Amino acid sequence: MSDPIEFWFDFSSPYSYIASELIDTLAERHGRKVKWRPMMLGSAFKASGVPLLVTVPLKGDYSKRDFDRSARYHGVPFKFPETFPMLTLVAARGYYWLHDQDCGKARAFAHAVFRAYWVHGRNIGELAVVQDIAARLGLDAAAFAQAVAAPEAKERLKRETDLAVSRGMFGAPYFIVDGEPFWGVDRLPQIEHWLETGGF
Amino acid sequence: MSDPIEFWFDFSSPYSYIASELIDTLAERHGRKVKWRPMMLGSAFKASGVPLLVTVPLKGDYSKRDFDRSARYHGVPFKFPETFPMLTLVAARGYYWLHDQDCGKARAFAHAVFRAYWVHGRNIGELAVVQDIAARLGLDAAAFAQAVAAPEAKERLKRETDLAVSRGMFGAPYFIVDGEPFWGVDRLPQIEHWLETGGF
Repeated sequence: MSDPIEFWFDFSSPYSYIASELIDTLAERHGRKVKWRPMMLGSAFKASGVPLLVTVPLKGDYSKRDFDRSARYHGVPFKFPETFPMLTLVAARGYYWLHDQDCGKARAFAHAVFRAYWVHGRNIGELAVVQDIAARLGLDAAAFAQAVAAPEAKERLKRETDLAVSRGMFGAPYFIVDGEPFWGVDRLPQIEHWLETGGF
Repeated sequence: MSDPIEFWFDFSSPYSYIASELIDTLAERHGRKVKWRPMMLGSAFKASGVPLLVTVPLKGDYSKRDFDRSARYHGVPFKFPETFPMLTLVAARGYYWLHDQDCGKARAFAHAVFRAYWVHGRNIGELAVVQDIAARLGLDAAAFAQAVAAPEAKERLKRETDLAVSRGMFGAPYFIVDGEPFWGVDRLPQIEHWLETGGF
């Protein structure tokens, strides 16, 4: 069994959401696991000076069309939310807290958060909404709220975000496969080819 | 026979070069022609505020790695040139001058210019180099030099560039298929699917 694929993302990134619906199946075809790692994309944008895509003249209009079309192309349900971008601190902190207890629950939680925002337009920036998502998965909503407010949770997410940037991340999704970085859901075919050939 | 695919590009764009080696074959599979349209990408960058990719922190380093890897992925010879970016005014003006006389010669010229720069590292910003490329295709180098210096050639290229930006172009390659814009060589699979399905 080779190393897991690192999948760095922000819950606020539409292309990350699309990738989240595809990457595990792709990895499985090649006997790989995927390590999901949410981070704060704003910090990567600050480090690279990359602006928020939808705010760029011409490119922003195109990108909204491309989000929709890319989701249709991959057969993934998608609806651009009314509130965008979204500050996803609570969801990301909650993810790591869950992950350290139960990796499977954390994966289910991440899928639920992505879909709540990118399919159902829920405001995943609000603690109450994220607590509700957690509760529906059978998790303790009060313990969740306490955990994400703890200094350890804040530090953990900051550490993960710094690590992502130190590995060259400037946009999401950002994958690392055997040390090779791939940016964007549109690099999945190259990742697949990389896994098939052992690098090319 | 449906409308040709519009293929907007700058000879200075590495992803445009890769696309130039692939798009005609893709289009042929679906009974389509391709209309090649060089333009000055700097003007689109100015309109959108998009910076030159390789100058962006983190993203620039990644992109150089991605140029090479994408070329290998598509089986296209590629060597990042010593001089980059390149001002491609002369080549683009020459293209339109040739195109208005002989579409096939113009296509051969465009391929030769792309390969001279992206495989052999020749300085395609220099008139003498572009004249030499033209001469090897059996064209009259003196007539070529005269044509690209004429006010009509300058105006033509300016008009094409303005048209590209007015159609939403902010980066290259930029394709328009039946009114639908696609940006990037990584959108070729979506273009193929679009042609197969008549839009999705």
